[in-house]
Amino acid sequence: MIYPLDTHRNEAGHLVIGGCDVVDLVQEFGSPLYVYDEATIRAMCRSYVDVLAENYPNFSVTYAGKAYIDLAVLRIVADEGFGLDAVSGGEIQCAVAAEFPMERVIFHGNNKLPDEIELGLSAGIGRFMVDGLDDLRLISQVASDRQTTANVMLRLTPGISAHTHDYIRTGALDSKFGLPISTGQAEEAVRLALESSGVSLIGYHAHIGSQIFDTEPYAQTVEVLLGFAEQMHDKYGVCPEVLSPGGGCGVQYVEEDDGLEIERLVKVICRTFKDGLPAGVEPELALEPGRSIVANAGVALYSVGTLKEIPGIRKYVAVDGGMADNIRPALYGSEYKVDIASREADGECSTVTIAGRYCESGDILFKDVSLPELRNGDIVAAATSGAYNLAMSSNYNMALRPAVVFVKDGQATLSRRRETYDDLLAVFPGA
Amino acid sequence: MIYPLDTHRNEAGHLVIGGCDVVDLVQEFGSPLYVYDEATIRAMCRSYVDVLAENYPNFSVTYAGKAYIDLAVLRIVADEGFGLDAVSGGEIQCAVAAEFPMERVIFHGNNKLPDEIELGLSAGIGRFMVDGLDDLRLISQVASDRQTTANVMLRLTPGISAHTHDYIRTGALDSKFGLPISTGQAEEAVRLALESSGVSLIGYHAHIGSQIFDTEPYAQTVEVLLGFAEQMHDKYGVCPEVLSPGGGCGVQYVEEDDGLEIERLVKVICRTFKDGLPAGVEPELALEPGRSIVANAGVALYSVGTLKEIPGIRKYVAVDGGMADNIRPALYGSEYKVDIASREADGECSTVTIAGRYCESGDILFKDVSLPELRNGDIVAAATSGAYNLAMSSNYNMALRPAVVFVKDGQATLSRRRETYDDLLAVFPGA
Repeated sequence: MIYPLDTHRNEAGHLVIGGCDVVDLVQEFGSPLYVYDEATIRAMCRSYVDVLAENYPNFSVTYAGKAYIDLAVLRIVADEGFGLDAVSGGEIQCAVAAEFPMERVIFHGNNKLPDEIELGLSAGIGRFMVDGLDDLRLISQVASDRQTTANVMLRLTPGISAHTHDYIRTGALDSKFGLPISTGQAEEAVRLALESSGVSLIGYHAHIGSQIFDTEPYAQTVEVLLGFAEQMHDKYGVCPEVLSPGGGCGVQYVEEDDGLEIERLVKVICRTFKDGLPAGVEPELALEPGRSIVANAGVALYSVGTLKEIPGIRKYVAVDGGMADNIRPALYGSEYKVDIASREADGECSTVTIAGRYCESGDILFKDVSLPELRNGDIVAAATSGAYNLAMSSNYNMALRPAVVFVKDGQATLSRRRETYDDLLAVFPGA
Repeated sequence: MIYPLDTHRNEAGHLVIGGCDVVDLVQEFGSPLYVYDEATIRAMCRSYVDVLAENYPNFSVTYAGKAYIDLAVLRIVADEGFGLDAVSGGEIQCAVAAEFPMERVIFHGNNKLPDEIELGLSAGIGRFMVDGLDDLRLISQVASDRQTTANVMLRLTPGISAHTHDYIRTGALDSKFGLPISTGQAEEAVRLALESSGVSLIGYHAHIGSQIFDTEPYAQTVEVLLGFAEQMHDKYGVCPEVLSPGGGCGVQYVEEDDGLEIERLVKVICRTFKDGLPAGVEPELALEPGRSIVANAGVALYSVGTLKEIPGIRKYVAVDGGMADNIRPALYGSEYKVDIASREADGECSTVTIAGRYCESGDILFKDVSLPELRNGDIVAAATSGAYNLAMSSNYNMALRPAVVFVKDGQATLSRRRETYDDLLAVFPGA
């Protein structure tokens, strides 16, 4: 799946998402526009929940809000029973504004600030994910000062095992994130948590990366978590209430991508988990997907502006967005499926490069894509734009960040308004 | 030069910029904090103006606002006699808000939108930089519809010459920017401009890139501009009032960088320009520096949070900023000079990696820098942070973008306030 569920063309040849004609959407909400399909987000949530419910009923799933956050997405995932993996005071504030069930919020991050920990405690979030020894000390201190107790999980880095060829795991040891098991720092954190007032140690977590297309690293992660839990139980008598092998399920951006079927991944995780548990013990299994919930649900719509053909070299088509709303092509070399959204894609295709409108040579959105001849005023759609596009968007060149609409059954609702010049000037005293 | 002029340490061992103790600045304005030294910006402006005034008095210099824009920097460069190279409606609005002399504003960009051209005309900007044939048609049409005339310059791409080994010039032909000379498109634009109502063709421009450390490409650009002007004069009788070899003067980020002395560059440009001009003709020579005006004037200040040492592997130090306020290390692999700002940098140095606080492995600000042992609460300074850091900054992870102060003679003035959670929520309807 690349486009949202039920994406199709109507008789006018326009792309239709969630029952909404995208040409009408651009007419009403302007361009560029990001469109999220509610049904696809719900379907993705259910891919996790249904398989977990069937295979291991003591589970939780939290949405990693860093992929994309606004009040609409928070309300949808909450409605599907998800929690929220928040990584800053700003994300916690979004959850508060969305009236999110705060006990389902986990606060992650390698360098949480004291006032953010305060905010998390006062907002009543359910859990803190401890990223290191300093982080643990700070959470413990802030909670003690408030005469309260924070539920903490420890983020572990699985570390280098015999398989040193495994980039993901090697990389995991040399990471700013987490408590390495192999160095003894993870165990030190367990001891420290057990003796610290202000924190209650409830479990362990690992997150091995993003855009992972194979189930095997997850099975290994589950085994590492279980092995560490057993060791700590033997040494300190501590039993985890919850274990979490994180998120990172790979999604499909272009047809050549394999993607990783959520159902298959969750089944492997559940099976490995159950197989590895001691008899009579059933801790909560917690998953933390982000990208796989929203990436394919989101489509970016741009309007075609100027055209430039350099004979024998390249055909450039400039659109009204670019690296300010989507830095991923420049930052990661990411590729996207791109189509004409405002008319039937008939006619002979040729190779074009879709450039952004920002003043930098690197502002190329979609290099060498095959499309029918584009004209000024055409609307192009870029699929799989739901994760880490707007989340990382900037005001580079004093660009106004695009509007976002959520579509469902032919209805479109604005969930993020387009920025205005007044927004840009608001941070300048005296403007 | 890497740090701003007159940067030194006081008796307490604190870094002092523009007469301001940076520890006091962080105390007053919070952390992270960006500090710009007014004297350095003025000195950089004068490096251009003084050499031009002495060597070729019919000149203009415009500041490329995309490097960093706020009202303070606009007022300083205006006061130094500069114009503004704006690349969007947002930048034009900033100029209006700063009461910038609008006749000195040039509007650049490969895909200007009709309402931005309208805005430029109604705000009375002096010139439009035409980036392509479609852009020219649109400017002409919008101006005609308003029954006015826009002064236009044509941005040329010098194109592939005999020196195909020259990456800069080869790259220039395969660019989304400008009108290639070699394909005849630049000449076509001259013809179109001459026959179009709504535009008055006043000159030619080329911009060969950024962070250029050699004067030779500039000399070649000047020669190409003069050669094209002569050809167009011979064919169409059109004389340019202004010629511009753009900007791109390389600045020094770390001690190993060479930098390019502004005085030397400007002298080479003036000499090549004068040598190439026909007798009795003295068009305006226009330069467009951006980075070289503000990069070294700006210093980023971060506070140290959590520390993590992986024995035998790496020592991570996390600060309270990261890829949200400075994407350049992740995007370009950029390096910076980093120092302890809050105490004397004595003690043995070791290699540390300064990581940001954002939830992404790539969020490493300064990899493998040599510093004395850092402690929680230390303030570190990153020099050469004045250009393209905040300009490209995002709210990734719902981060609040930092405050900016301008310092001068021991006085600090807030020019960009720190964002608030309310700013983040303001774009969400119903928040």
